[in-house]
Amino acid sequence: MTEQLRPDGSLRHLLTLETLNRGQIERLLDRSQTFVRPLGEPPPRSALLAGFTVANLFTEPSTRTRVSFELAAKRLGADVVNLEVQLSSRVKGESMLDTVYTLQALHVDALVIRDAEAGVPGLVADNVAPHVSVLSAGEAHLSHPTQGLLDALTIYQRKQRFAGLAVAIVGDIRHSRVARSAWQVLRALGVTDLRIVAPAALMPAADEFQGCTRTRSITKGLEGVDVIMMLRVQKERFGEAEVPDGEKYFAAWGLTPERLALARSNAIVMHPQPMNRGVEIASVVADGPQSVIRDQVRNGVAVRMAVLAEVLGTRAGAGARP
Amino acid sequence: MTEQLRPDGSLRHLLTLETLNRGQIERLLDRSQTFVRPLGEPPPRSALLAGFTVANLFTEPSTRTRVSFELAAKRLGADVVNLEVQLSSRVKGESMLDTVYTLQALHVDALVIRDAEAGVPGLVADNVAPHVSVLSAGEAHLSHPTQGLLDALTIYQRKQRFAGLAVAIVGDIRHSRVARSAWQVLRALGVTDLRIVAPAALMPAADEFQGCTRTRSITKGLEGVDVIMMLRVQKERFGEAEVPDGEKYFAAWGLTPERLALARSNAIVMHPQPMNRGVEIASVVADGPQSVIRDQVRNGVAVRMAVLAEVLGTRAGAGARP
Amino acid sequence: MTEQLRPDGSLRHLLTLETLNRGQIERLLDRSQTFVRPLGEPPPRSALLAGFTVANLFTEPSTRTRVSFELAAKRLGADVVNLEVQLSSRVKGESMLDTVYTLQALHVDALVIRDAEAGVPGLVADNVAPHVSVLSAGEAHLSHPTQGLLDALTIYQRKQRFAGLAVAIVGDIRHSRVARSAWQVLRALGVTDLRIVAPAALMPAADEFQGCTRTRSITKGLEGVDVIMMLRVQKERFGEAEVPDGEKYFAAWGLTPERLALARSNAIVMHPQPMNRGVEIASVVADGPQSVIRDQVRNGVAVRMAVLAEVLGTRAGAGARP
Repeated sequence: MTEQLRPDGSLRHLLTLETLNRGQIERLLDRSQTFVRPLGEPPPRSALLAGFTVANLFTEPSTRTRVSFELAAKRLGADVVNLEVQLSSRVKGESMLDTVYTLQALHVDALVIRDAEAGVPGLVADNVAPHVSVLSAGEAHLSHPTQGLLDALTIYQRKQRFAGLAVAIVGDIRHSRVARSAWQVLRALGVTDLRIVAPAALMPAADEFQGCTRTRSITKGLEGVDVIMMLRVQKERFGEAEVPDGEKYFAAWGLTPERLALARSNAIVMHPQPMNRGVEIASVVADGPQSVIRDQVRNGVAVRMAVLAEVLGTRAGAGARP
Repeated sequence: MTEQLRPDGSLRHLLTLETLNRGQIERLLDRSQTFVRPLGEPPPRSALLAGFTVANLFTEPSTRTRVSFELAAKRLGADVVNLEVQLSSRVKGESMLDTVYTLQALHVDALVIRDAEAGVPGLVADNVAPHVSVLSAGEAHLSHPTQGLLDALTIYQRKQRFAGLAVAIVGDIRHSRVARSAWQVLRALGVTDLRIVAPAALMPAADEFQGCTRTRSITKGLEGVDVIMMLRVQKERFGEAEVPDGEKYFAAWGLTPERLALARSNAIVMHPQPMNRGVEIASVVADGPQSVIRDQVRNGVAVRMAVLAEVLGTRAGAGARP
Repeated sequence: MTEQLRPDGSLRHLLTLETLNRGQIERLLDRSQTFVRPLGEPPPRSALLAGFTVANLFTEPSTRTRVSFELAAKRLGADVVNLEVQLSSRVKGESMLDTVYTLQALHVDALVIRDAEAGVPGLVADNVAPHVSVLSAGEAHLSHPTQGLLDALTIYQRKQRFAGLAVAIVGDIRHSRVARSAWQVLRALGVTDLRIVAPAALMPAADEFQGCTRTRSITKGLEGVDVIMMLRVQKERFGEAEVPDGEKYFAAWGLTPERLALARSNAIVMHPQPMNRGVEIASVVADGPQSVIRDQVRNGVAVRMAVLAEVLGTRAGAGARP
């Protein structure tokens, strides 16, 4: 596994939250919080990364995540270039590395990589020059570390703690990088009552999500929880064994006001977006008073500013850039 | 209908020219004129919108209009992000709003929206937070307000008046947002001889374009006019009843030098682009001395700077941004 | 042929290297060298082109070249807009010019044009206003002038001379703009032993590449050379007479360590990218100690900065921009 830290312990890459310890995560969350502003106030800006170049290299479309990273980099003063590349599968690893070597030779300092295939961000991180940082913007079903951080930050803003919280992750856990990163970060931060709530076909393998409770009953899953994390259902899953289609999915697994009432009265509702309203979540819940879905987005750009500042800021702080 | 003004009377959104009064339109034109520079001179630049973020959210491709808005925003110092989104029709309104909420949570200050469906810019404006402005960059066949303003500005630069002018709009009026915005702005500015010139199949409904003269004779339509506004013919219209195809359309409706000679000798020729040369307009006319088509483009970026400065500038003037 | 120089002898457009003399090319290379930094150091930045606008107008996709031009312009302080346009072939010339007139009216100062059709950059240069510059980013099979310059710069950095060098260009010469620009620049700089090495089907016409030696033997072609320039093979060529497909091509024409050993021991290996590893070049060679492929990329952005500074800098130097 790719080492994410520099020899001095500072963060060089962010590919997964799995190997970060509690202190490292808390440091990132603390720094993220300094970049949070209320809606309607100007976002924070600095020239910390003036003279640096960040490339968004996306091989699967994700406009929202790309824009979030793009604005994070620009608000720190960096130049940003966007690349959407389609790589033929036969030579994908090679082509990806050649593209990366090209960007590196163009003096790109950080590569933000989104890829549907497992291992690509790590492959890139293993091959870039020592001064280049790699940030995963989503890797297959495995990892979405900035999403995990923004989820943790959103929870902390509302609950001011992790210990003792009951958190339910509901829906297509099996295929979800969001769920895996959430599990990693919340476990590290001390959440002990973490519940995986899914139909059998969408449950992860038995050796995954250690320490979580599993249930196929949404009623049991939501009972008394402080946090509900709903996941997007991919339409292509419908038709798989035990995954009912749209309306039936909603009837069986959708977060309705009635189901929300099973949770604690001050429970918060999260969703990584994009939402299938009326499938995994009722609109009245998504837009209701317990929803923190828009806070998640706002926190996302703050987290990405913090991560960019962490991985590049040491060099910036050393006065390398004019 | 969405209110475009703030309680203090300042412009918050620009979705349509229909509800703006003459004074409001003149104010926008005056401000636009301050951003006009001759070809070859540097464009005006300022830091008025430094720290602001403008998002171009286009669901139908329009590279030219997007670039015009992008440069307008950048030359005022704003950050710009471009999003081209394809939304499935079933959930289009919902998905559009979720995208908009995301952009808003990313501290986007102004949303420039281009959409083929009626009502989308208004829907967005009705749902954004109070500090966010929405600018239509073209809405279905209904409205293209910055185009209307740039058309009016172009006419004023050459004629120094609106009263007493005879203006002919020629071609596919029925499906044209450009024609509708032109009609709204020119009516408000006092043009009384406004002529709708089109084959029957491309005429608008009887209750539209009130106060205009209608004619199916291009000869009568162009006789003695000061301004000719040609419209783009969509190829998909050919084959509809009474719409002849390319060459025949040109023979029946194309602006040739002979037809141009029916207008006043100092008449100007306009076209919103992209042009079908040899279909609705002869190249010799498009590139001739009476053509102001390139002035329209130049004025377009000036108008978009003025509109952005109007809708965001009050907040900028208040010193909100560092 | 379009005149690339202004009356005062300064460079206005860069469409081809064919008509530049040695002094003009050396001046561009010297200036390019001032923008070269080692990998890991910050790239050079200046405000020379602050207030200028550069448009990348690409009608065929080339993400790497576009990003290279984009970063070159941004690091000189210019605003950059990217346009990818698909133009229907019937009206392509016209539509291209109308797009160009639009960009010009938006106060774009330099147009970077990539087009698969011969003559398009020249057509544009012949029609833009006097203050606008046109840079070719690749024209059909004919010309890729910034690639030619970066290739020359890369050779000079390693060899410190051109006179007396033996250079082999290997592969699909017939369809290669890279080969043509390399031939033009190296001939002007005094390389006399320039070898065209290709199977018969990929040899250029007899009246092209004057002064070069032609051979269908890769062994003879590589013997004792100082520089090996490999070209990308387009897969669509496989199946043409005498062009063997992938593996067979590699067996017959691929640059292997054994073949590399035919060259001088300090020979350098170049490739314009993207590479078909295992087709025209072995990975061990592409990534080996004699490869300067990544230097080519780094030099590419330096060359593009130099060219932009040359064509726009006179005006910038005159203090035209605030």
